[in-house]
Amino acid sequence: MRLRKQAGVEDKIKELKHLFIENPEENKDNWKDVFDNENPIHVELGGGKGRFLTTLAAQNPDINYIFIELRGEVMMKAIEKVQAQNIPNIKFVLRNIDKIEEFFGKDEIDRFYINFCDPWPKARHYKRRLTYRGRLKQYAQILKYDGWVHFKTDELSLFEFSLNEFVDVDLKVKNISLDLHNSGMEDNIMTEYEEKFSNKGRTINRAEISLVKLKED
Amino acid sequence: MRLRKQAGVEDKIKELKHLFIENPEENKDNWKDVFDNENPIHVELGGGKGRFLTTLAAQNPDINYIFIELRGEVMMKAIEKVQAQNIPNIKFVLRNIDKIEEFFGKDEIDRFYINFCDPWPKARHYKRRLTYRGRLKQYAQILKYDGWVHFKTDELSLFEFSLNEFVDVDLKVKNISLDLHNSGMEDNIMTEYEEKFSNKGRTINRAEISLVKLKED
Repeated sequence: MRLRKQAGVEDKIKELKHLFIENPEENKDNWKDVFDNENPIHVELGGGKGRFLTTLAAQNPDINYIFIELRGEVMMKAIEKVQAQNIPNIKFVLRNIDKIEEFFGKDEIDRFYINFCDPWPKARHYKRRLTYRGRLKQYAQILKYDGWVHFKTDELSLFEFSLNEFVDVDLKVKNISLDLHNSGMEDNIMTEYEEKFSNKGRTINRAEISLVKLKED
Repeated sequence: MRLRKQAGVEDKIKELKHLFIENPEENKDNWKDVFDNENPIHVELGGGKGRFLTTLAAQNPDINYIFIELRGEVMMKAIEKVQAQNIPNIKFVLRNIDKIEEFFGKDEIDRFYINFCDPWPKARHYKRRLTYRGRLKQYAQILKYDGWVHFKTDELSLFEFSLNEFVDVDLKVKNISLDLHNSGMEDNIMTEYEEKFSNKGRTINRAEISLVKLKED
């Protein structure tokens, strides 16, 4: 069973079928056909309620966006935004990303966004963190050579873990911000979570990471 | 004039002449003779009141330490610690480090420590920060290939600047800590400043940096 059973969600999903990619594996190497153009493809891993990616999609009609999220009831919030604004360049995948390299072909993705992912604070759960080196290696297979991962979090211990993963495996990192909202970054788009928790005084961390070194392994 | 005029300090310095290296340039490539042994040489840039380096020196008799500090009245606190404990493996240099590459020969240093240096917060003063890439290049000339810089600061904006300098010039970085006192690092030696300001709630940041990439240029 591919879709999680969640009251009411499945019916809505059927209604909005044109926005969903139910079996992403079937489009591997052929995502251009899904969007019917040759535009670059940017993917958000765990898109949540969708303000971030829907804002970007509306601002950048020449980029295709893929929104991957495991929680159907959360994803519905994002779908509603896309419907309300009639945004054409975004598709939704309601799936776990544990085998994301089966969704896309080699070098098919131009950019990944990882925003405020689960910190998995227990030490023994480090492999579940989306910035664990094993996962980065999966993303590397499908990210273009000149592609970057854009990563934001308010969890200091996750950011510390992540920076060390990046430097330990010799990844190129740039634009590190230890206090994003005071860094002068003008085009930052806040997620729903980011707005709520920065208003509560949480500091936002951000970095951009190239995965080229992991592609070469 | 090499020594800064400071009331009382110069007389004391004359008394303690055996601890001071007045003209470090004269020992370039020959610091082994100063210590009369072949032990590795670790240098602290801006040693302040000296608790950090004198503690290390007492713990590690097989390493030679050089304490560089510009402020004579501050350095006297460090000297007093060395006298009180009769620590033999530390020497003092009362000088600005702007031309530190003239003090030491190529690859003569095994490690640098930079602890809580002046953040120079104004953007136009970035070249004065001790982690500015131009300064790193100076250190790289005199640091061994397998040597590392150990850097600590409680100034978030300085740490952010520094991390970006390191990654922008492709330096190898390791052991990044965004909250040192909660990171489980057991052998951390607190500076006087570090103890005072962490007690006031300041978070301590730390990283280790290899300068090999700057040597190769």
